[in-house]
Amino acid sequence: MSSIEVGVLGATGMVGQQFLQQLANHPWFRTSWLAASERSEGKRYDEAAPWRLAGPMPEGLAQQVVNPCTPGKGPKLVFSALDASVAGQIEQAFAEAGHIVVSNARNFRLEDDVPLLVPEVNADHLDILKVQAAQRGWKGMIVTNPNCSTVMLTMALAPLRQFGLRSCIVTTLQAVSGAGYPGVPSLDILGNVIPFIGGEEEKIERETRKILGACGGQAIAWHPVVVSASTTRVPVIDGHTESVSVDFDREVADGEILEAFRSFSGEPQRLGLPSAPDVPLLYLEQQNRPQPRLDADRGRGMTVTVGRLRPCALLQWKFFALGHNTIRGAAGAAVLNAELMRERGLLS
Amino acid sequence: MSSIEVGVLGATGMVGQQFLQQLANHPWFRTSWLAASERSEGKRYDEAAPWRLAGPMPEGLAQQVVNPCTPGKGPKLVFSALDASVAGQIEQAFAEAGHIVVSNARNFRLEDDVPLLVPEVNADHLDILKVQAAQRGWKGMIVTNPNCSTVMLTMALAPLRQFGLRSCIVTTLQAVSGAGYPGVPSLDILGNVIPFIGGEEEKIERETRKILGACGGQAIAWHPVVVSASTTRVPVIDGHTESVSVDFDREVADGEILEAFRSFSGEPQRLGLPSAPDVPLLYLEQQNRPQPRLDADRGRGMTVTVGRLRPCALLQWKFFALGHNTIRGAAGAAVLNAELMRERGLLS
Amino acid sequence: MSSIEVGVLGATGMVGQQFLQQLANHPWFRTSWLAASERSEGKRYDEAAPWRLAGPMPEGLAQQVVNPCTPGKGPKLVFSALDASVAGQIEQAFAEAGHIVVSNARNFRLEDDVPLLVPEVNADHLDILKVQAAQRGWKGMIVTNPNCSTVMLTMALAPLRQFGLRSCIVTTLQAVSGAGYPGVPSLDILGNVIPFIGGEEEKIERETRKILGACGGQAIAWHPVVVSASTTRVPVIDGHTESVSVDFDREVADGEILEAFRSFSGEPQRLGLPSAPDVPLLYLEQQNRPQPRLDADRGRGMTVTVGRLRPCALLQWKFFALGHNTIRGAAGAAVLNAELMRERGLLS
Amino acid sequence: MSSIEVGVLGATGMVGQQFLQQLANHPWFRTSWLAASERSEGKRYDEAAPWRLAGPMPEGLAQQVVNPCTPGKGPKLVFSALDASVAGQIEQAFAEAGHIVVSNARNFRLEDDVPLLVPEVNADHLDILKVQAAQRGWKGMIVTNPNCSTVMLTMALAPLRQFGLRSCIVTTLQAVSGAGYPGVPSLDILGNVIPFIGGEEEKIERETRKILGACGGQAIAWHPVVVSASTTRVPVIDGHTESVSVDFDREVADGEILEAFRSFSGEPQRLGLPSAPDVPLLYLEQQNRPQPRLDADRGRGMTVTVGRLRPCALLQWKFFALGHNTIRGAAGAAVLNAELMRERGLLS
Repeated sequence: MSSIEVGVLGATGMVGQQFLQQLANHPWFRTSWLAASERSEGKRYDEAAPWRLAGPMPEGLAQQVVNPCTPGKGPKLVFSALDASVAGQIEQAFAEAGHIVVSNARNFRLEDDVPLLVPEVNADHLDILKVQAAQRGWKGMIVTNPNCSTVMLTMALAPLRQFGLRSCIVTTLQAVSGAGYPGVPSLDILGNVIPFIGGEEEKIERETRKILGACGGQAIAWHPVVVSASTTRVPVIDGHTESVSVDFDREVADGEILEAFRSFSGEPQRLGLPSAPDVPLLYLEQQNRPQPRLDADRGRGMTVTVGRLRPCALLQWKFFALGHNTIRGAAGAAVLNAELMRERGLLS
Repeated sequence: MSSIEVGVLGATGMVGQQFLQQLANHPWFRTSWLAASERSEGKRYDEAAPWRLAGPMPEGLAQQVVNPCTPGKGPKLVFSALDASVAGQIEQAFAEAGHIVVSNARNFRLEDDVPLLVPEVNADHLDILKVQAAQRGWKGMIVTNPNCSTVMLTMALAPLRQFGLRSCIVTTLQAVSGAGYPGVPSLDILGNVIPFIGGEEEKIERETRKILGACGGQAIAWHPVVVSASTTRVPVIDGHTESVSVDFDREVADGEILEAFRSFSGEPQRLGLPSAPDVPLLYLEQQNRPQPRLDADRGRGMTVTVGRLRPCALLQWKFFALGHNTIRGAAGAAVLNAELMRERGLLS
Repeated sequence: MSSIEVGVLGATGMVGQQFLQQLANHPWFRTSWLAASERSEGKRYDEAAPWRLAGPMPEGLAQQVVNPCTPGKGPKLVFSALDASVAGQIEQAFAEAGHIVVSNARNFRLEDDVPLLVPEVNADHLDILKVQAAQRGWKGMIVTNPNCSTVMLTMALAPLRQFGLRSCIVTTLQAVSGAGYPGVPSLDILGNVIPFIGGEEEKIERETRKILGACGGQAIAWHPVVVSASTTRVPVIDGHTESVSVDFDREVADGEILEAFRSFSGEPQRLGLPSAPDVPLLYLEQQNRPQPRLDADRGRGMTVTVGRLRPCALLQWKFFALGHNTIRGAAGAAVLNAELMRERGLLS
Repeated sequence: MSSIEVGVLGATGMVGQQFLQQLANHPWFRTSWLAASERSEGKRYDEAAPWRLAGPMPEGLAQQVVNPCTPGKGPKLVFSALDASVAGQIEQAFAEAGHIVVSNARNFRLEDDVPLLVPEVNADHLDILKVQAAQRGWKGMIVTNPNCSTVMLTMALAPLRQFGLRSCIVTTLQAVSGAGYPGVPSLDILGNVIPFIGGEEEKIERETRKILGACGGQAIAWHPVVVSASTTRVPVIDGHTESVSVDFDREVADGEILEAFRSFSGEPQRLGLPSAPDVPLLYLEQQNRPQPRLDADRGRGMTVTVGRLRPCALLQWKFFALGHNTIRGAAGAAVLNAELMRERGLLS
């Protein structure tokens, strides 16, 4: 149990801490190696990084020494919580050196031969790793998870693909934890809304199409759905809310949508992966849900909730979706990816 | 100066207080009569209603006695800040008794012969009052202003009518002051988003079309634009933010949109009405604006701000709009209506 | 297991829901009877009360029928989450009818013959129940827990009694959940501080002295400490923070205080009560702790955290204390009381 | 009118912007020179510093070029909004070069020969400038205003000096704007309380005693009052709230305290200084006031409000005080200082 050693790149940042939280007491993975920037190198973890999550730091971390991000050091499996400004170079170096890099960073997400994975949605995209291996000549590999807002959206859209998903307009109301630490200054967001998050709208519009696409083994064909995203930051700690309108190639009844939401399940549930929520997508009946404070933690933060399905005057249907942005949208997503990879025999 | 006496129906509620604030030191109107429900009747105003707005209560109000809402009493011109649950009956009784009722309540907004007025947008809708007089047989009249979210939206859409406005999808992020007092419980909204405001989406979808419509003298032809609205409540005190996507009958260039925003002006500006902002619609260049905390008070709360014009992948363009919901969206809107009516000779 | 049936009076309010949450999956207690006001009588629980806590309603509650608060009905052991406006009469009637009433309401807290219990602090105050039985002639009994702010304070002061605790000045920064639902209007507290909570300062000043007092079997001698409390409401969901200064009869070294905090433990820990936290009082070393968002949930909400011990220019020492107001300060407190009572053989 | 040219050191930070706001449309002062760190040197002001205050940037600023902080350049009178890390050296160099430096920084506040001024409280402390001139040999001079929390406290305590003020315990609940920009990360303060502000408690304890002290011409004798301060940060934008307990050498009646608060006035009011509020200290009768959202802007942010006077079980009386921290507590304070200095003939 906990027999697979893992490392965390960027272990001192907010996403890194969320990774360590997700990995604490994991039945398969044991965090044996922490790496971060030179500023933290050689320090004890509790000196390098004040613990910023609620509750105590997981046991056994405080005394671990923070290593530099040196490829070839550390376990074969490394999770990357690196900032995008450095992730590209470091992750590639680790993959070249033989590491399996399960990354939350955006740098490789849209590469043709890199899986952009939401295990309930596109587990078969792992097949593209054969292309990656053939093309890149890396001894290791890179697998990515999407931008936090994209995860919730694709989880809600995936069950609707069967109806001929044609277009989608989404406005997000995003929590501040998505911006890391120190992140958003309190003067900017207390009692306020910021109608801008750099690069976020483009990420949602493109990543969604790749994730929902079909993987033919040799290539991923992006889904033809047209996605238009508007993103805002709101004074919420955890939990991205999304106002979504969708249209289809054919007329779809509300009962069909509800049935699709309710019956949605995927590989993680079938395989019983440790981080998989029993119910990956939960439709809430109450007319004022989902809400971040009440629903973001469902399924230990891994369940995406949807609600308020109603007709859209312009497209066919509209609804709200919600998910925990640093768990389902970041660290939990990556850990679930690694769990799926283990079951597929990709970690050995 | 301040020679026109006015009364306020529902003077003790939040919207009523906002009316009294707007009317304090008004150059034309003098608040000489306060009316509210039986609970407050006969009390001094400061005993009937703790002042809930920032700063001191306007001078001269504290000692005024609160009257019952008795038609025929009070000045000819009365502003109605009544709750919708009672506004229908009381406003009609006042109009029958000869009062000019300038109302913020929703009850009469969609009546065929009642102006639903945004003075910069549809000042000519006042012409329908002739029909109202002919049909209703009231000695007085009723004029209404829209729902708070609708005002911002119509101000932003009005200059775009010229391009053949075809459709609009909007998601709102609404401030708590729009729900009155006590309104939204703090447990529901602190660090949270509520994706539901009862009846609000329907109001926006319908009122917008009436306001943007053409008034042929005998009837108002609703604008054919298709509007789809999703509404949320966010932890903001004042200022509704709206994420808007729009489509047109023809292809429109961004420069055309910007020019239309920037050159937008209306009757209130032409007439120099006291509550009219110099710039009714202000396009902000910064990429992260408008924001409620920084921009809601522009033009003493009467300017609507827009920003972030950018292409929409599905419709043609998208942008954000913002306005002060209790000023431009309620009390200030009604006072501006009354100012326009005076200039049109309707108050005599 | 879970062999003792319990009822909850006032089950539909916020404190009632917190009770049901605390009792879900309890190893000894099984909630078999829900009671509330006439308004809810006969309804299914999920129809009588929308669930307002984060996460799903505990299983098995939704279909239970809400009963009226009829003495003699329901299990022998009832928890009271009643509002103070009705608790006095109803709780007394239940005690007369033979129920063991474990109450969170304030009505009986300061009665001479009613234990005001914080199990780590004054478990021996249960001895006064003999006096209660003798004096009142009730077939049952009433045991109370303190006001939410008082619990944190007495937990922090109890280990300092040994130094001759003489005086204490405290300013609280209290969370909105302490005010119930709908409770504090969002317009009053968003981005604001309210320097007033009705009756709260008196409660803290008096309850603290009773709790810290000695129970001689026949009477409780209130502790002579002079307590001055100032209370404020702040925009926090859960967790009361307290700024505390204390003085003693003799000079006390900081090491003595720290040692007293760190070694503090009580009956619940000795007995291993199910709701007892391993560490009832936790001193945090970081200079900016305790904080409600990070520390209120420690020990499943039952640990009180303290920090920032430093000299006071006027009294001897000052520090901050924090606790979860609806768990350690309300429902969790009452459940712990009942657990202690069971171990003392008082429930049979 | 506006005939005195002034400069602002540190013009691009939050406090600098607040200075520019305070100086806009000032009847005596005209901001003709902006200076900041090398990073901003040579840039237009609107490019060097995004405007972070509500509403538009004051007219005429956008195009001004930002200068380096070179002593001898710029007008004789300069306001310093510099950060403490650089203020010491730069302010001294400006004073040596002949500038009159009116500073908000902490560096010189406790120097024996530097006035730490609250014009209503200790206008006579300007007399110590003769000592400064004699001792320092500077061609110019330095005058300071206190830490933001200290201003509110000394305004509330000044009228109570007559009763033999002996001791004071204060807990502050401070707004985030006091920490500048980017200042407090939103993750630290949303829905939270931080019970620590570096160095703040010491500043309040010491500055208060100097300000309330007597200036004998040759020296300032610190007031003997013992002050104990605890400071917290709360999720409020503007307005520091303070919970204050005070004791006196003699027994004081509540009527005496109220009368002292209500009759308090000072040099700024007597001289009719432009920034002076009509009522410098306002006692609010309502039992739940003062509140930052409702009261911080009183007197254009220059009035300090107090309320809830009630007996303290340990000291004699307790009350709450509140003030706008970036106006009365920073930029407005410095501008008022300069106004007083002009009336005293110190600017020529």
